[in-house]
Amino acid sequence: MLSPLPAPERERLIHFMHRLADASGAAILPHFRQALAVENKQAHGFDPVTVADRAAEAAIRAMIRQEFPDHSILGEEEGHHRGDSDWTWVIDPIDGTRAFMTGQPLWGTLIALNDGTRPVLGMLDQPYMRERYFGHAAESRFEGPAARHPLRTRRGPKLNEAILSSTHPELFKHGPEADAFHDLRGRVRMTRYGGDCYAYGLLAMGLIDLVVESSLKPFDIQALIPVVEGAGGRLVNWRGGDCSQGGQAVACGDPALLDEVLRVLEPGAD
Amino acid sequence: MLSPLPAPERERLIHFMHRLADASGAAILPHFRQALAVENKQAHGFDPVTVADRAAEAAIRAMIRQEFPDHSILGEEEGHHRGDSDWTWVIDPIDGTRAFMTGQPLWGTLIALNDGTRPVLGMLDQPYMRERYFGHAAESRFEGPAARHPLRTRRGPKLNEAILSSTHPELFKHGPEADAFHDLRGRVRMTRYGGDCYAYGLLAMGLIDLVVESSLKPFDIQALIPVVEGAGGRLVNWRGGDCSQGGQAVACGDPALLDEVLRVLEPGAD
Repeated sequence: MLSPLPAPERERLIHFMHRLADASGAAILPHFRQALAVENKQAHGFDPVTVADRAAEAAIRAMIRQEFPDHSILGEEEGHHRGDSDWTWVIDPIDGTRAFMTGQPLWGTLIALNDGTRPVLGMLDQPYMRERYFGHAAESRFEGPAARHPLRTRRGPKLNEAILSSTHPELFKHGPEADAFHDLRGRVRMTRYGGDCYAYGLLAMGLIDLVVESSLKPFDIQALIPVVEGAGGRLVNWRGGDCSQGGQAVACGDPALLDEVLRVLEPGAD
Repeated sequence: MLSPLPAPERERLIHFMHRLADASGAAILPHFRQALAVENKQAHGFDPVTVADRAAEAAIRAMIRQEFPDHSILGEEEGHHRGDSDWTWVIDPIDGTRAFMTGQPLWGTLIALNDGTRPVLGMLDQPYMRERYFGHAAESRFEGPAARHPLRTRRGPKLNEAILSSTHPELFKHGPEADAFHDLRGRVRMTRYGGDCYAYGLLAMGLIDLVVESSLKPFDIQALIPVVEGAGGRLVNWRGGDCSQGGQAVACGDPALLDEVLRVLEPGAD
Protein backbone atom coordinates (compact mmCIF):
# COMPACT_ATOMS: atom_id res chain seq x y z
CA MET A 1 0.00 0.00 0.00
CA LEU A 2 1.08 3.57 -0.60
CA SER A 3 2.43 5.78 2.16
CA PRO A 4 0.47 9.02 2.39
CA LEU A 5 2.07 12.40 1.78
CA PRO A 6 1.34 15.15 4.32
CA ALA A 7 -1.89 16.80 3.20
CA PRO A 8 -0.61 20.37 2.59
CA GLU A 9 2.30 19.13 0.48
CA ARG A 10 -0.04 16.77 -1.34
CA GLU A 11 -2.50 19.52 -2.20
CA ARG A 12 0.28 21.69 -3.57
CA LEU A 13 1.55 18.82 -5.71
CA ILE A 14 -1.94 17.92 -6.98
CA HIS A 15 -2.51 21.54 -7.91
CA PHE A 16 0.77 21.50 -9.84
CA MET A 17 -0.26 18.25 -11.57
CA HIS A 18 -3.41 19.98 -12.80
CA ARG A 19 -1.26 22.78 -14.21
CA LEU A 20 0.93 20.21 -16.00
CA ALA A 21 -2.18 18.59 -17.46
CA ASP A 22 -3.52 21.98 -18.57
CA ALA A 23 -0.26 22.61 -20.42
CA SER A 24 -0.01 19.18 -21.99
CA GLY A 25 -3.63 19.24 -23.13
CA ALA A 26 -3.10 22.62 -24.75
CA ALA A 27 -0.05 21.24 -26.58
CA ILE A 28 -1.80 18.06 -27.73
CA LEU A 29 -5.34 19.02 -28.70
CA PRO A 30 -4.52 21.09 -31.80
CA HIS A 31 -3.04 17.88 -33.27
CA PHE A 32 -5.84 15.48 -32.35
CA ARG A 33 -7.77 14.29 -35.41
CA GLN A 34 -5.43 16.18 -37.72
CA ALA A 35 -3.27 14.57 -40.36
CA LEU A 36 -0.05 13.70 -38.55
CA ALA A 37 3.46 12.96 -39.69
CA VAL A 38 3.85 9.55 -38.10
CA GLU A 39 7.41 8.38 -37.57
CA ASN A 40 8.59 4.93 -36.65
CA LYS A 41 10.68 4.82 -33.49
CA GLN A 42 11.39 1.14 -33.95
CA ALA A 43 12.55 -0.71 -37.02
CA HIS A 44 10.35 -3.63 -35.97
CA GLY A 45 6.72 -3.22 -35.05
CA PHE A 46 4.71 -0.06 -35.08
CA ASP A 47 5.43 2.62 -32.53
CA PRO A 48 4.23 5.96 -33.81
CA VAL A 49 5.46 9.21 -32.36
CA THR A 50 3.60 12.37 -32.97
CA VAL A 51 4.39 16.00 -32.95
CA ALA A 52 1.85 16.30 -30.16
CA ASP A 53 3.65 13.77 -27.97
CA ARG A 54 6.90 15.71 -28.15
CA ALA A 55 5.33 19.13 -27.69
CA ALA A 56 3.45 17.98 -24.60
CA GLU A 57 6.47 16.36 -22.99
CA ALA A 58 8.60 19.45 -23.63
CA ALA A 59 5.93 21.64 -22.00
CA ILE A 60 5.67 19.36 -18.96
CA ARG A 61 9.46 19.11 -18.53
CA ALA A 62 9.92 22.86 -18.71
CA MET A 63 7.34 23.42 -15.97
CA ILE A 64 8.84 20.77 -13.68
CA ARG A 65 12.36 22.15 -14.09
CA GLN A 66 11.12 25.59 -13.17
CA GLU A 67 9.01 24.51 -10.16
CA PHE A 68 11.13 21.64 -8.84
CA PRO A 69 14.62 22.05 -10.29
CA ASP A 70 16.09 19.25 -8.17
CA HIS A 71 13.49 16.65 -9.18
CA SER A 72 14.23 13.91 -11.69
CA ILE A 73 12.09 13.35 -14.78
CA LEU A 74 11.44 10.11 -16.66
CA GLY A 75 9.44 10.55 -19.85
CA GLU A 76 8.61 8.49 -22.89
CA GLU A 77 10.06 10.88 -25.43
CA GLU A 78 13.18 12.37 -23.84
CA GLY A 79 14.28 9.65 -21.45
CA HIS A 80 15.66 10.11 -17.94
CA HIS A 81 16.74 13.49 -16.53
CA ARG A 82 18.44 12.84 -13.19
CA GLY A 83 18.03 15.59 -10.62
CA ASP A 84 19.55 15.84 -7.15
CA SER A 85 16.57 14.45 -5.25
CA ASP A 86 14.88 11.06 -5.13
CA TRP A 87 11.61 12.56 -6.37
CA THR A 88 10.92 11.63 -9.98
CA TRP A 89 8.13 12.74 -12.30
CA VAL A 90 7.19 9.87 -14.59
CA ILE A 91 5.26 11.00 -17.66
CA ASP A 92 3.75 9.66 -20.86
CA PRO A 93 2.25 12.52 -22.85
CA ILE A 94 0.08 10.31 -25.06
CA ASP A 95 -0.54 6.83 -23.77
CA GLY A 96 -2.60 5.03 -26.41
CA THR A 97 -0.94 6.39 -29.54
CA ARG A 98 -2.99 4.10 -31.80
CA ALA A 99 -6.22 5.40 -30.27
CA PHE A 100 -4.93 8.93 -30.80
CA MET A 101 -4.06 8.25 -34.45
CA THR A 102 -7.47 6.80 -35.19
CA GLY A 103 -9.39 9.59 -33.48
CA GLN A 104 -10.67 7.52 -30.55
CA PRO A 105 -10.70 9.56 -27.33
CA LEU A 106 -9.35 6.66 -25.23
CA TRP A 107 -5.77 7.92 -25.06
CA GLY A 108 -4.56 9.89 -22.07
CA THR A 109 -1.73 11.89 -20.60
CA LEU A 110 -0.13 10.06 -17.67
CA ILE A 111 1.66 11.98 -14.93
CA ALA A 112 3.08 10.31 -11.83
CA LEU A 113 5.22 11.51 -8.97
CA ASN A 114 7.50 8.84 -7.49
CA ASP A 115 9.09 9.40 -4.06
CA GLY A 116 12.05 7.15 -4.86
CA THR A 117 10.29 3.99 -3.77
CA ARG A 118 6.84 4.14 -5.37
CA PRO A 119 4.44 6.43 -7.22
CA VAL A 120 2.65 8.48 -4.55
CA LEU A 121 0.50 10.64 -6.84
CA GLY A 122 -0.92 9.87 -10.25
CA MET A 123 -3.11 11.52 -12.87
CA LEU A 124 -4.75 10.35 -16.09
CA ASP A 125 -5.83 13.36 -18.13
CA GLN A 126 -8.10 13.06 -21.19
CA PRO A 127 -8.14 16.59 -22.54
CA TYR A 128 -10.52 16.05 -25.49
CA MET A 129 -13.26 14.97 -23.07
CA ARG A 130 -11.94 17.31 -20.33
CA GLU A 131 -11.73 14.40 -17.91
CA ARG A 132 -9.19 13.83 -15.13
CA TYR A 133 -8.74 10.78 -12.96
CA PHE A 134 -6.22 11.35 -10.15
CA GLY A 135 -5.36 9.77 -6.87
CA HIS A 136 -2.98 9.11 -4.00
CA ALA A 137 -2.94 6.72 -1.06
CA ALA A 138 -6.00 8.15 0.65
CA GLU A 139 -8.41 8.71 -2.23
CA SER A 140 -8.94 9.06 -5.96
CA ARG A 141 -11.15 11.56 -7.71
CA PHE A 142 -12.81 12.13 -11.09
CA GLU A 143 -13.30 15.59 -12.53
CA GLY A 144 -15.18 15.98 -15.80
CA PRO A 145 -17.27 18.64 -17.48
CA ALA A 146 -20.52 17.29 -16.02
CA ALA A 147 -19.42 15.61 -12.78
CA ARG A 148 -16.81 15.67 -9.99
CA HIS A 149 -16.77 12.88 -7.46
CA PRO A 150 -14.59 10.37 -5.62
CA LEU A 151 -13.66 7.23 -7.54
CA ARG A 152 -14.65 3.86 -6.08
CA THR A 153 -14.02 0.49 -7.67
CA ARG A 154 -16.84 -2.06 -7.96
CA ARG A 155 -17.03 -4.64 -5.20
CA GLY A 156 -18.58 -8.04 -5.23
CA PRO A 157 -18.41 -9.53 -8.72
CA LYS A 158 -17.43 -13.16 -9.00
CA LEU A 159 -14.85 -13.93 -11.67
CA ASN A 160 -17.55 -15.16 -14.07
CA GLU A 161 -19.38 -11.84 -13.62
CA ALA A 162 -16.31 -9.68 -14.16
CA ILE A 163 -15.65 -7.36 -17.10
CA LEU A 164 -12.08 -7.61 -18.38
CA SER A 165 -10.29 -5.04 -20.52
CA SER A 166 -7.02 -5.19 -22.41
CA THR A 167 -5.41 -3.06 -25.08
CA HIS A 168 -5.35 -5.66 -27.83
CA PRO A 169 -5.82 -9.44 -28.11
CA GLU A 170 -2.38 -9.75 -29.68
CA LEU A 171 -0.57 -7.80 -26.97
CA PHE A 172 0.62 -10.94 -25.22
CA LYS A 173 3.73 -12.97 -26.07
CA HIS A 174 2.99 -16.30 -27.70
CA GLY A 175 3.29 -19.17 -25.29
CA PRO A 176 2.49 -19.19 -21.56
CA GLU A 177 1.72 -15.47 -21.37
CA ALA A 178 -0.87 -15.56 -24.15
CA ASP A 179 -2.24 -18.87 -22.85
CA ALA A 180 -2.76 -17.44 -19.36
CA PHE A 181 -4.55 -14.39 -20.74
CA HIS A 182 -6.79 -16.59 -22.90
CA ASP A 183 -7.52 -18.77 -19.89
CA LEU A 184 -8.61 -15.71 -17.91
CA ARG A 185 -10.64 -14.39 -20.84
CA GLY A 186 -12.58 -17.65 -20.93
CA ARG A 187 -13.55 -17.30 -17.26
CA VAL A 188 -14.99 -13.76 -17.30
CA ARG A 189 -18.33 -12.44 -18.45
CA MET A 190 -17.08 -10.00 -21.08
CA THR A 191 -13.79 -8.83 -22.59
CA ARG A 192 -13.27 -5.38 -24.09
CA TYR A 193 -10.30 -4.30 -26.18
CA GLY A 194 -8.81 -0.96 -27.10
CA GLY A 195 -9.00 0.89 -23.82
CA ASP A 196 -5.31 1.67 -23.27
CA CYS A 197 -4.76 3.71 -20.08
CA TYR A 198 -8.37 4.86 -20.11
CA ALA A 199 -9.53 1.39 -19.01
CA TYR A 200 -7.80 1.89 -15.65
CA GLY A 201 -9.82 5.08 -15.16
CA LEU A 202 -13.03 3.18 -15.86
CA LEU A 203 -11.93 0.46 -13.44
CA ALA A 204 -11.37 3.13 -10.78
CA MET A 205 -14.89 4.38 -11.59
CA GLY A 206 -16.36 0.92 -10.95
CA LEU A 207 -17.33 0.15 -14.56
CA ILE A 208 -14.63 -2.41 -15.42
CA ASP A 209 -13.42 -5.08 -13.01
CA LEU A 210 -10.09 -6.24 -14.45
CA VAL A 211 -7.42 -4.75 -16.70
CA VAL A 212 -4.66 -7.11 -17.81
CA GLU A 213 -1.66 -5.98 -19.85
CA SER A 214 1.93 -6.84 -20.65
CA SER A 215 5.13 -5.31 -22.08
CA LEU A 216 4.53 -2.04 -20.25
CA LYS A 217 7.13 0.63 -19.61
CA PRO A 218 7.34 2.42 -16.23
CA PHE A 219 5.72 5.54 -17.68
CA ASP A 220 2.77 3.45 -18.96
CA ILE A 221 1.76 2.33 -15.47
CA GLN A 222 3.13 4.50 -12.63
CA ALA A 223 0.44 7.20 -12.84
CA LEU A 224 -2.28 4.58 -12.78
CA ILE A 225 -1.18 2.84 -9.56
CA PRO A 226 -2.26 5.66 -7.18
CA VAL A 227 -5.47 6.19 -9.19
CA VAL A 228 -6.50 2.53 -8.93
CA GLU A 229 -5.32 1.98 -5.35
CA GLY A 230 -6.80 5.25 -4.11
CA ALA A 231 -10.15 4.07 -5.52
CA GLY A 232 -9.92 0.85 -3.53
CA GLY A 233 -8.49 -1.47 -6.17
CA ARG A 234 -5.15 -3.21 -6.62
CA LEU A 235 -2.64 -2.75 -9.46
CA VAL A 236 0.20 -5.27 -9.35
CA ASN A 237 2.27 -7.54 -11.57
CA TRP A 238 1.16 -11.06 -12.51
CA ARG A 239 2.81 -12.43 -9.35
CA GLY A 240 1.04 -9.93 -7.12
CA GLY A 241 4.13 -7.73 -6.62
CA ASP A 242 5.09 -4.18 -7.51
CA CYS A 243 4.47 -3.37 -11.20
CA SER A 244 5.86 0.17 -11.18
CA GLN A 245 8.83 -0.81 -13.36
CA GLY A 246 6.47 -2.04 -16.10
CA GLY A 247 6.19 -5.46 -17.70
CA GLN A 248 3.05 -7.39 -16.85
CA ALA A 249 0.23 -5.69 -14.94
CA VAL A 250 -3.14 -6.67 -13.58
CA ALA A 251 -5.60 -4.18 -12.10
CA CYS A 252 -8.36 -5.61 -9.97
CA GLY A 253 -11.28 -3.46 -8.81
CA ASP A 254 -12.21 -5.77 -5.96
CA PRO A 255 -9.14 -6.85 -3.95
CA ALA A 256 -11.08 -9.96 -2.90
CA LEU A 257 -10.90 -11.20 -6.50
CA LEU A 258 -7.13 -10.74 -6.89
CA ASP A 259 -5.90 -14.11 -5.57
CA GLU A 260 -8.16 -16.04 -7.93
CA VAL A 261 -7.06 -13.92 -10.90
CA LEU A 262 -3.38 -14.33 -10.02
CA ARG A 263 -3.79 -18.12 -9.87
CA VAL A 264 -5.06 -18.04 -13.47
CA LEU A 265 -2.30 -15.70 -14.69
CA GLU A 266 0.57 -17.30 -12.72
CA PRO A 267 1.54 -19.88 -15.40
CA GLY A 268 2.25 -16.94 -17.73
CA ALA A 269 3.98 -14.69 -15.18
CA ASP A 270 7.49 -13.44 -16.00
CA MET B 1 -25.56 5.80 -54.80
CA LEU B 2 -28.21 7.66 -52.87
CA SER B 3 -30.80 9.80 -54.59
CA PRO B 4 -30.82 13.32 -53.18
CA LEU B 5 -33.83 14.76 -51.41
CA PRO B 6 -34.96 18.26 -52.44
CA ALA B 7 -32.90 20.69 -50.34
CA PRO B 8 -35.74 22.43 -48.43
CA GLU B 9 -37.32 19.14 -47.41
CA ARG B 10 -33.88 17.80 -46.50
CA GLU B 11 -33.10 20.75 -44.27
CA ARG B 12 -36.40 20.36 -42.44
CA LEU B 13 -35.73 16.66 -41.88
CA ILE B 14 -32.16 17.25 -40.71
CA HIS B 15 -33.42 19.86 -38.27
CA PHE B 16 -35.93 17.33 -36.96
CA MET B 17 -33.19 14.71 -36.64
CA HIS B 18 -31.23 17.09 -34.43
CA ARG B 19 -34.33 17.49 -32.25
CA LEU B 20 -34.64 13.70 -32.00
CA ALA B 21 -30.99 13.45 -30.98
CA ASP B 22 -31.44 16.21 -28.38
CA ALA B 23 -34.31 14.23 -26.86
CA SER B 24 -32.58 10.86 -26.94
CA GLY B 25 -29.38 12.28 -25.44
CA ALA B 26 -31.37 13.86 -22.61
CA ALA B 27 -33.01 10.48 -21.95
CA ILE B 28 -29.75 8.51 -22.04
CA LEU B 29 -27.12 10.63 -20.32
CA PRO B 30 -28.49 10.44 -16.76
CA HIS B 31 -27.94 6.67 -16.99
CA PHE B 32 -24.44 6.70 -18.49
CA ARG B 33 -21.81 5.49 -16.00
CA GLN B 34 -24.48 4.73 -13.43
CA ALA B 35 -25.18 1.29 -12.01
CA LEU B 36 -27.72 -0.21 -14.39
CA ALA B 37 -30.18 -3.04 -14.11
CA VAL B 38 -28.98 -5.11 -17.03
CA GLU B 39 -31.45 -7.61 -18.42
CA ASN B 40 -30.82 -10.39 -20.85
CA LYS B 41 -32.95 -10.19 -23.98
CA GLN B 42 -31.63 -13.50 -25.22
CA ALA B 43 -31.32 -16.78 -23.39
CA HIS B 44 -28.09 -17.44 -25.30
CA GLY B 45 -25.30 -14.92 -25.51
CA PHE B 46 -25.15 -11.53 -23.92
CA ASP B 47 -27.47 -8.80 -25.17
CA PRO B 48 -27.96 -6.21 -22.48
CA VAL B 49 -30.86 -3.81 -22.52
CA THR B 50 -30.80 -0.73 -20.42
CA VAL B 51 -33.33 1.60 -18.99
CA ALA B 52 -31.67 4.31 -21.05
CA ASP B 53 -32.18 2.42 -24.31
CA ARG B 54 -35.91 2.12 -23.73
CA ALA B 55 -36.39 5.68 -22.49
CA ALA B 56 -34.58 7.09 -25.53
CA GLU B 57 -36.53 5.01 -28.05
CA ALA B 58 -39.84 5.96 -26.41
CA ALA B 59 -38.88 9.65 -26.61
CA ILE B 60 -37.88 9.37 -30.29
CA ARG B 61 -41.02 7.42 -31.25
CA ALA B 62 -43.32 9.92 -29.54
CA MET B 63 -41.75 12.82 -31.46
CA ILE B 64 -41.94 11.03 -34.81
CA ARG B 65 -45.59 10.08 -34.30
CA GLN B 66 -46.42 13.68 -33.52
CA GLU B 67 -44.46 15.24 -36.40
CA PHE B 68 -44.94 12.56 -39.08
CA PRO B 69 -47.95 10.47 -38.03
CA ASP B 70 -48.03 8.53 -41.31
CA HIS B 71 -44.35 7.47 -41.18
CA SER B 72 -43.27 3.99 -40.18
CA ILE B 73 -40.78 3.36 -37.36
CA LEU B 74 -38.34 0.47 -36.97
CA GLY B 75 -36.48 0.48 -33.68
CA GLU B 76 -34.33 -1.93 -31.72
CA GLU B 77 -36.47 -1.96 -28.60
CA GLU B 78 -40.07 -1.78 -29.77
CA GLY B 79 -39.92 -3.37 -33.23
CA HIS B 80 -41.77 -2.22 -36.34
CA HIS B 81 -44.59 0.32 -36.30
CA ARG B 82 -46.12 0.39 -39.79
CA GLY B 83 -47.51 3.75 -40.89
CA ASP B 84 -49.36 4.63 -44.08
CA SER B 85 -46.35 5.92 -46.02
CA ASP B 86 -43.19 4.31 -47.35
CA TRP B 87 -41.03 6.58 -45.19
CA THR B 88 -39.51 4.70 -42.27
CA TRP B 89 -37.41 5.98 -39.37
CA VAL B 90 -34.85 3.35 -38.41
CA ILE B 91 -33.42 3.86 -34.94
CA ASP B 92 -31.05 2.29 -32.44
CA PRO B 93 -30.99 4.36 -29.26
CA ILE B 94 -27.73 2.88 -27.94
CA ASP B 95 -25.57 1.14 -30.51
CA GLY B 96 -22.60 -0.26 -28.63
CA THR B 97 -24.30 -1.42 -25.45
CA ARG B 98 -21.12 -3.05 -24.15
CA ALA B 99 -19.22 0.22 -24.57
CA PHE B 100 -22.05 1.99 -22.76
CA MET B 101 -22.00 -0.51 -19.88
CA THR B 102 -18.25 -0.16 -19.40
CA GLY B 103 -18.27 3.63 -19.53
CA GLN B 104 -16.48 3.98 -22.87
CA PRO B 105 -17.91 6.88 -24.90
CA LEU B 106 -17.83 4.89 -28.17
CA TRP B 107 -21.55 4.09 -28.24
CA GLY B 108 -23.94 6.21 -30.24
CA THR B 109 -27.55 6.87 -31.05
CA LEU B 110 -28.34 5.91 -34.65
CA ILE B 111 -31.19 7.61 -36.52
CA ALA B 112 -31.93 6.94 -40.20
CA LEU B 113 -34.72 7.96 -42.53
CA ASN B 114 -35.46 5.42 -45.25
CA ASP B 115 -37.54 6.47 -48.27
CA GLY B 116 -38.81 2.93 -48.90
CA THR B 117 -35.83 1.92 -51.02
CA ARG B 118 -32.78 3.14 -49.05
CA PRO B 119 -31.66 5.30 -46.14
CA VAL B 120 -31.54 8.88 -47.45
CA LEU B 121 -30.53 10.61 -44.21
CA GLY B 122 -28.50 9.32 -41.31
CA MET B 123 -27.15 10.56 -37.99
CA LEU B 124 -24.76 9.17 -35.39
CA ASP B 125 -25.12 11.12 -32.14
CA GLN B 126 -22.66 10.75 -29.25
CA PRO B 127 -24.26 12.85 -26.53
CA TYR B 128 -21.60 12.41 -23.82
CA MET B 129 -19.01 14.03 -26.11
CA ARG B 130 -21.68 16.25 -27.74
CA GLU B 131 -20.65 15.00 -31.18
CA ARG B 132 -22.87 14.45 -34.21
CA TYR B 133 -21.98 12.86 -37.53
CA PHE B 134 -24.75 13.18 -40.11
CA GLY B 135 -25.10 12.93 -43.83
CA HIS B 136 -27.13 12.45 -46.99
CA ALA B 137 -26.32 11.88 -50.64
CA ALA B 138 -24.67 15.25 -51.17
CA GLU B 139 -22.54 15.67 -48.06
CA SER B 140 -21.80 14.63 -44.50
CA ARG B 141 -20.98 16.88 -41.60
CA PHE B 142 -19.45 16.74 -38.14
CA GLU B 143 -20.60 18.97 -35.31
CA GLY B 144 -18.81 18.83 -31.98
CA PRO B 145 -18.17 21.18 -29.09
CA ALA B 146 -14.90 22.46 -30.57
CA ALA B 147 -15.38 22.02 -34.33
CA ARG B 148 -17.98 21.90 -37.11
CA HIS B 149 -16.92 20.86 -40.58
CA PRO B 150 -17.71 18.64 -43.56
CA LEU B 151 -16.65 15.01 -43.28
CA ARG B 152 -14.26 13.60 -45.90
CA THR B 153 -12.86 10.10 -45.96
CA ARG B 154 -9.13 9.52 -46.43
CA ARG B 155 -8.01 8.84 -50.00
CA GLY B 156 -4.93 7.08 -51.23
CA PRO B 157 -3.89 4.40 -48.74
CA LYS B 158 -2.83 1.06 -50.13
CA LEU B 159 -4.30 -1.97 -48.38
CA ASN B 160 -1.08 -2.52 -46.41
CA GLU B 161 -1.26 1.08 -45.20
CA ALA B 162 -4.92 0.90 -44.17
CA ILE B 163 -6.30 1.06 -40.63
CA LEU B 164 -9.06 -1.50 -40.03
CA SER B 165 -11.63 -1.38 -37.25
CA SER B 166 -14.10 -3.97 -36.02
CA THR B 167 -16.22 -4.32 -32.92
CA HIS B 168 -14.62 -7.46 -31.56
CA PRO B 169 -12.25 -10.18 -32.85
CA GLU B 170 -14.84 -12.83 -32.00
CA LEU B 171 -17.69 -11.15 -33.85
CA PHE B 172 -17.32 -13.37 -36.89
CA LYS B 173 -18.82 -16.83 -37.36
CA HIS B 174 -16.29 -19.64 -37.20
CA GLY B 175 -15.38 -20.93 -40.62
CA PRO B 176 -15.16 -18.96 -43.88
CA GLU B 177 -16.42 -15.69 -42.38
CA ALA B 178 -13.81 -15.62 -39.60
CA ASP B 179 -11.12 -16.85 -42.01
CA ALA B 180 -11.86 -14.02 -44.46
CA PHE B 181 -11.71 -11.41 -41.72
CA HIS B 182 -8.42 -12.82 -40.43
CA ASP B 183 -7.05 -12.81 -43.97
CA LEU B 184 -7.94 -9.13 -44.30
CA ARG B 185 -6.51 -8.35 -40.88
CA GLY B 186 -3.19 -9.84 -41.94
CA ARG B 187 -3.00 -7.51 -44.95
CA VAL B 188 -3.57 -4.16 -43.25
CA ARG B 189 -1.26 -1.94 -41.24
CA MET B 190 -3.26 -1.87 -37.99
CA THR B 191 -6.46 -3.32 -36.57
CA ARG B 192 -8.49 -1.63 -33.84
CA TYR B 193 -11.30 -3.23 -31.85
CA GLY B 194 -14.16 -1.88 -29.81
CA GLY B 195 -15.34 0.99 -31.95
CA ASP B 196 -18.95 -0.08 -32.55
CA CYS B 197 -20.85 2.52 -34.61
CA TYR B 198 -18.37 5.20 -33.65
CA ALA B 199 -15.75 3.67 -35.96
CA TYR B 200 -17.89 4.59 -38.99
CA GLY B 201 -17.86 8.21 -37.82
CA LEU B 202 -14.07 8.13 -37.61
CA LEU B 203 -13.93 6.55 -41.06
CA ALA B 204 -16.09 9.40 -42.39
CA MET B 205 -13.63 11.78 -40.70
CA GLY B 206 -10.69 10.23 -42.57
CA LEU B 207 -9.02 8.62 -39.53
CA ILE B 208 -9.91 4.96 -40.16
CA ASP B 209 -9.87 3.34 -43.62
CA LEU B 210 -11.94 0.17 -43.23
CA VAL B 211 -14.69 -1.03 -40.90
CA VAL B 212 -15.69 -4.68 -41.25
CA GLU B 213 -18.57 -6.21 -39.31
CA SER B 214 -21.09 -9.03 -39.39
CA SER B 215 -24.41 -10.13 -37.86
CA LEU B 216 -25.81 -6.61 -38.05
CA LYS B 217 -29.46 -5.65 -37.80
CA PRO B 218 -30.98 -3.00 -40.11
CA PHE B 219 -31.01 -0.45 -37.29
CA ASP B 220 -27.27 -1.05 -36.66
CA ILE B 221 -26.28 0.11 -40.13
CA GLN B 222 -28.89 2.23 -41.93
CA ALA B 223 -27.98 5.54 -40.27
CA LEU B 224 -24.32 4.98 -41.11
CA ILE B 225 -24.76 4.49 -44.86
CA PRO B 226 -25.59 8.15 -45.67
CA VAL B 227 -22.88 9.35 -43.25
CA VAL B 228 -20.17 7.23 -44.90
CA GLU B 229 -21.32 7.72 -48.49
CA GLY B 230 -21.90 11.47 -48.04
CA ALA B 231 -18.27 11.70 -46.87
CA GLY B 232 -17.07 10.01 -50.05
CA GLY B 233 -16.76 6.43 -48.84
CA ARG B 234 -18.67 3.23 -49.57
CA LEU B 235 -20.67 1.10 -47.14
CA VAL B 236 -21.82 -2.20 -48.66
CA ASN B 237 -22.15 -5.90 -47.87
CA TRP B 238 -19.28 -8.35 -48.38
CA ARG B 239 -20.39 -8.88 -52.00
CA GLY B 240 -20.44 -5.16 -52.75
CA GLY B 241 -24.25 -4.88 -52.64
CA ASP B 242 -26.77 -3.10 -50.45
CA CYS B 243 -26.20 -3.74 -46.72
CA SER B 244 -29.18 -1.80 -45.41
CA GLN B 245 -30.94 -4.97 -44.24
CA GLY B 246 -27.96 -5.83 -42.02
CA GLY B 247 -25.79 -8.94 -41.99
CA GLN B 248 -22.22 -8.42 -43.17
CA ALA B 249 -20.94 -4.91 -43.83
CA VAL B 250 -17.74 -3.33 -45.05
CA ALA B 251 -17.10 0.41 -45.01
CA CYS B 252 -14.28 1.66 -47.19
CA GLY B 253 -13.05 5.25 -46.96
CA ASP B 254 -11.43 5.22 -50.38
CA PRO B 255 -13.74 3.69 -53.02
CA ALA B 256 -10.62 2.79 -55.03
CA LEU B 257 -9.71 0.25 -52.36
CA LEU B 258 -13.09 -1.50 -52.29
CA ASP B 259 -12.59 -4.09 -55.02
CA GLU B 260 -9.38 -5.37 -53.47
CA VAL B 261 -11.03 -5.61 -50.03
CA LEU B 262 -14.05 -7.43 -51.45
CA ARG B 263 -11.80 -9.99 -53.14
CA VAL B 264 -10.32 -10.81 -49.72
CA LEU B 265 -13.71 -10.99 -47.98
CA GLU B 266 -15.58 -12.82 -50.78
CA PRO B 267 -14.75 -16.38 -49.58
CA GLY B 268 -16.58 -15.53 -46.33
CA ALA B 269 -19.51 -13.65 -47.87
CA ASP B 270 -23.03 -14.84 -47.04
